[in-house]
Amino acid sequence: MPNLKSQIINLKSQTDNSYPIYFSDSFDALAEKIAPFVKDKICAIVSNPVVWPLYGKEVATAIKNAGGNPVKTLLPDGEEHKNFSELEKLLEKFVENNLNRKSIVVALGGGVVGDLAGYAAASYMRGIPYIQIPTTLLAQVDSSVGGKTGVNLSLGKNLVGAFYQPKLVYINWNTLSTLLAREVRAGYAEVIKYGVISDADLFKLLEKQTAEVFKSFESSSLVVPGILGEIIKRCCKIKTEVVAEDEREHGLRAILNYGHTFAHAIEKLTNYTEFVHGEAVAIGMNAAAVYANKLGMCEADVINRQKMLIESAGLPTQFPKLETEEVIAEFYHDKKATASELKFILPAKIGKVKIIKNPDLAALKETITDCETE
Amino acid sequence: MPNLKSQIINLKSQTDNSYPIYFSDSFDALAEKIAPFVKDKICAIVSNPVVWPLYGKEVATAIKNAGGNPVKTLLPDGEEHKNFSELEKLLEKFVENNLNRKSIVVALGGGVVGDLAGYAAASYMRGIPYIQIPTTLLAQVDSSVGGKTGVNLSLGKNLVGAFYQPKLVYINWNTLSTLLAREVRAGYAEVIKYGVISDADLFKLLEKQTAEVFKSFESSSLVVPGILGEIIKRCCKIKTEVVAEDEREHGLRAILNYGHTFAHAIEKLTNYTEFVHGEAVAIGMNAAAVYANKLGMCEADVINRQKMLIESAGLPTQFPKLETEEVIAEFYHDKKATASELKFILPAKIGKVKIIKNPDLAALKETITDCETE
Repeated sequence: MPNLKSQIINLKSQTDNSYPIYFSDSFDALAEKIAPFVKDKICAIVSNPVVWPLYGKEVATAIKNAGGNPVKTLLPDGEEHKNFSELEKLLEKFVENNLNRKSIVVALGGGVVGDLAGYAAASYMRGIPYIQIPTTLLAQVDSSVGGKTGVNLSLGKNLVGAFYQPKLVYINWNTLSTLLAREVRAGYAEVIKYGVISDADLFKLLEKQTAEVFKSFESSSLVVPGILGEIIKRCCKIKTEVVAEDEREHGLRAILNYGHTFAHAIEKLTNYTEFVHGEAVAIGMNAAAVYANKLGMCEADVINRQKMLIESAGLPTQFPKLETEEVIAEFYHDKKATASELKFILPAKIGKVKIIKNPDLAALKETITDCETE
Repeated sequence: MPNLKSQIINLKSQTDNSYPIYFSDSFDALAEKIAPFVKDKICAIVSNPVVWPLYGKEVATAIKNAGGNPVKTLLPDGEEHKNFSELEKLLEKFVENNLNRKSIVVALGGGVVGDLAGYAAASYMRGIPYIQIPTTLLAQVDSSVGGKTGVNLSLGKNLVGAFYQPKLVYINWNTLSTLLAREVRAGYAEVIKYGVISDADLFKLLEKQTAEVFKSFESSSLVVPGILGEIIKRCCKIKTEVVAEDEREHGLRAILNYGHTFAHAIEKLTNYTEFVHGEAVAIGMNAAAVYANKLGMCEADVINRQKMLIESAGLPTQFPKLETEEVIAEFYHDKKATASELKFILPAKIGKVKIIKNPDLAALKETITDCETE
């Protein structure tokens, strides 16, 4: 019997992670909503040289009007800068600007800005509060909600980070008017995803409205249609319900990765140059439906309706030419998973997906071949 | 009235942060205690080239006996390596060794290893579990318990990190037999701290036993006296009680910083070369008592008893020659604090401290002058 004694350290749960998401067609209500968090505080606005000239001044003014002290801290634009080196530089800027434990970070931009600023907030002095002001469709419907923050390693994307929830999210959907059409389309892939994974009514709405939505982006109008604002709100509602059930992705949250296992493989094997993330997700969702149909999980109608909707948003559905074996190897590599652990999110019908383990390799290979560009 | 709608995201608390701390004079019970956490898992043992040759094999064998798959990942030894560059390299080693979300990190070493390994565990895939096996007195009584993890920035120490609790802490106090005497003495400063801040009986025990404890380290014996094991256990009990009340240092936890505001200034102004951390804490505790006495908060007896105990552990009490103004400027810089925010932890009597805001600058200056080496 070894000489052994023990104590138990019993920590009370001391975190309240609830927060509001605001939806508006302007920044008019920003000052009022952020005031409780920024008043008398140093506020580091983290943005990039593309977004700052468009909205930086307006957000800084709102912070001043709310009684806060805004400080500008820019990151370079682009996913390739979502790394430790930029994180460290940003944290050093926080020190130089005298941010303390009571200061706050305001993320103003797309997914890269939000992920990096959120992780910097999570890490600085072991955690200071932050606010998300997403300015891309992808960030508004996906990355700004749910508290996933982090950076990439050279060996893989999003391998490092924290679950860290913002104090509030403020979505001004009119910021989409200054986006490139390709970026709006890419974000729309995630919109379609929400319809497929859990909201058949949203899917029907998208079938009806998508052409109209994109027509407005082709005109030179700088007003984003209100219906897109409504759609964004419905997407956030689905995401918040899923995240509220399963913040740390022990189960349900995985459904948000619908299409993403295929997408990550496509992005990786085309060196992140051929497709933006949403385009790869669109291709991945089509492949997921084809695979589900081969497994007898869903009707061909699911493939067809989803494909039509994806195409009406100007997004691709066909795999690029890749070695099938390499694609499959990438699935395992992506999640550091063994065969028994590898999960696919597959549609049973529009509005309902299931998490399927133990992949059928023959059906997967057929899927990839069937989905390839002819 | 702006066009504004909102949703609330309401996250259930999904974390259970309770964990056991085991105390033993050997690693005999390690395999049994870690088995529930390491069985069938890849276990990255994070250590350094000094500690690994002493205990690495024994810990790796315990992991194997517990059904785990140990992988060796070494950090360079020394506080100067507690930075982002080493963190990134360590995380890349995790990827190379195929660690996934079910893998576990085992920190084997002193404070630098524990802080860095814990932060790497907190960050990898947004958090995988870890176990602390501290091998220095400082780590056993202080840094391994309580979940403070992180790295230094070039602009300041411990400015980046996470509150992230281990799954268990296993303290084998016989690992202290291989420490340099100076390191044991330095760790002992934190031991004395616990007596002053909240346990007058522990303080009395230390007054009686300290000479005896250090006699054993001067002999060539490789057995650490059981009384030191008892003392470590009592220190951990105090730390766990404080942390259980206030994990994120919103209030009470600050008392653990007794002596540390002075210590950080001394360390910084002597470029971290003249004193090791515990020595600076010893000087800082003496200064805190002198300052408290000047404020009329405590009797001179507190200064005297504490000074005698510190000296009996072979630790310094006198300030090095420094510019008083620079020391005071450093207090503010250390916590990014304004005058009204700056807090000192000061003794009211042995076993009882208070948190005092709004420093009395005249009394502080006198304190520093009084405490200087003649």
